[in-house]
Amino acid sequence: MEHSLQPKNYQKVPEPTLRRLPWYLSNVKLLKQRGEHYVSSTQISKEINIDASQIAKDLSYVNISGRTRVGYEVDTLIEVLEDFLGFTGIHKAFLFGVGSLGGALLQDSGLKHFGLEIVAAFDVDPALVGTTLNDIPIYHSDEFVHKMSEYDVQIGVLTVPIEIAQSVTDMMVGGGLKAVWNFTPFRIRVPEHIVVQNTSLYAHLAVMFNRLNFNKIK
Amino acid sequence: MEHSLQPKNYQKVPEPTLRRLPWYLSNVKLLKQRGEHYVSSTQISKEINIDASQIAKDLSYVNISGRTRVGYEVDTLIEVLEDFLGFTGIHKAFLFGVGSLGGALLQDSGLKHFGLEIVAAFDVDPALVGTTLNDIPIYHSDEFVHKMSEYDVQIGVLTVPIEIAQSVTDMMVGGGLKAVWNFTPFRIRVPEHIVVQNTSLYAHLAVMFNRLNFNKIK
Repeated sequence: MEHSLQPKNYQKVPEPTLRRLPWYLSNVKLLKQRGEHYVSSTQISKEINIDASQIAKDLSYVNISGRTRVGYEVDTLIEVLEDFLGFTGIHKAFLFGVGSLGGALLQDSGLKHFGLEIVAAFDVDPALVGTTLNDIPIYHSDEFVHKMSEYDVQIGVLTVPIEIAQSVTDMMVGGGLKAVWNFTPFRIRVPEHIVVQNTSLYAHLAVMFNRLNFNKIK
Repeated sequence: MEHSLQPKNYQKVPEPTLRRLPWYLSNVKLLKQRGEHYVSSTQISKEINIDASQIAKDLSYVNISGRTRVGYEVDTLIEVLEDFLGFTGIHKAFLFGVGSLGGALLQDSGLKHFGLEIVAAFDVDPALVGTTLNDIPIYHSDEFVHKMSEYDVQIGVLTVPIEIAQSVTDMMVGGGLKAVWNFTPFRIRVPEHIVVQNTSLYAHLAVMFNRLNFNKIK
């Protein structure tokens, strides 16, 4: 009966739920700033235009219970949500490919507030290897396996050119990384047990451009 | 019968299709590098593990026709896809909020290769206003409406703190911007005719952390 002791955040929460929870979190943070002490799903619903029943359902995955007519206690909800989403922990990551986007991500210290700390980066460019960016050391890619034993890292951020996206992914997985945050527009293949999140800025741009064109001629 | 003359890329293409097309594009680019002159949807399918019929259907939105048994001509397919996705055009944008992520995006010159050029940024921090980052001028937010008449801009990139995400959005829309690329974890509200793309890095992190935890105890 081990599974009954399983913490709630170890459940496989549906991806749409996980994508909506940060919306609730930021909204509740805002309500707190406005001086609210309690918040109901109906209240969040009005603010962000999502069904209250959907919000209640999403929040049922989280270890928190609201009080009838009063709702959720704001401070507790923020704390529990941040914890549930993994934003309070520190998840160390390596970044692969210190090009334009990779370099930009190294400089985005904001990720740390959401639980991700990039502790080292890898590239093959002699002009970059041995330097640091935002205090993050850049090593030669050949040093990756060695550095895996030095740092306790599970996540790899992929910002390499598409030509080597798959081969670098294979190297990452072979070296023991468990998750790939893929920023390339390339659809990488990984073994089943490896977690992949695709964040293609370019795909989002394509959608935005198409919609803009469409609105123009409508 | 005006609509029969409507260019194909002015159709409202389904969002999932628009998100998959960049995968095909990067894959075809790779095949070109390997020396291929023709590519079929079956071939792309094998490479990226998406149904060939789905690929053919997605590509039917694009102005290109394949030849039986031979497939699509690689150079033409790349050209047509890049054009269709809007990556060959220049879409000028303003960025709002030169914090950690905003500053990082200003430094990512890679966006230009995909059709987005951030021409100016806005902030209220006196230490930033009047300076440039990656040659991009940073103005005070109060100057936004004035700058709208100076630059030909339709897109606003939103990287402000969540507390002001909605009010800055309202200002952007009021000033005449037609699309908001929202990087905040806040769910902004806009009038119906305004295009919104949400790119929440934090939501992606949340999914990744949850899946990692889940795999650990599985």
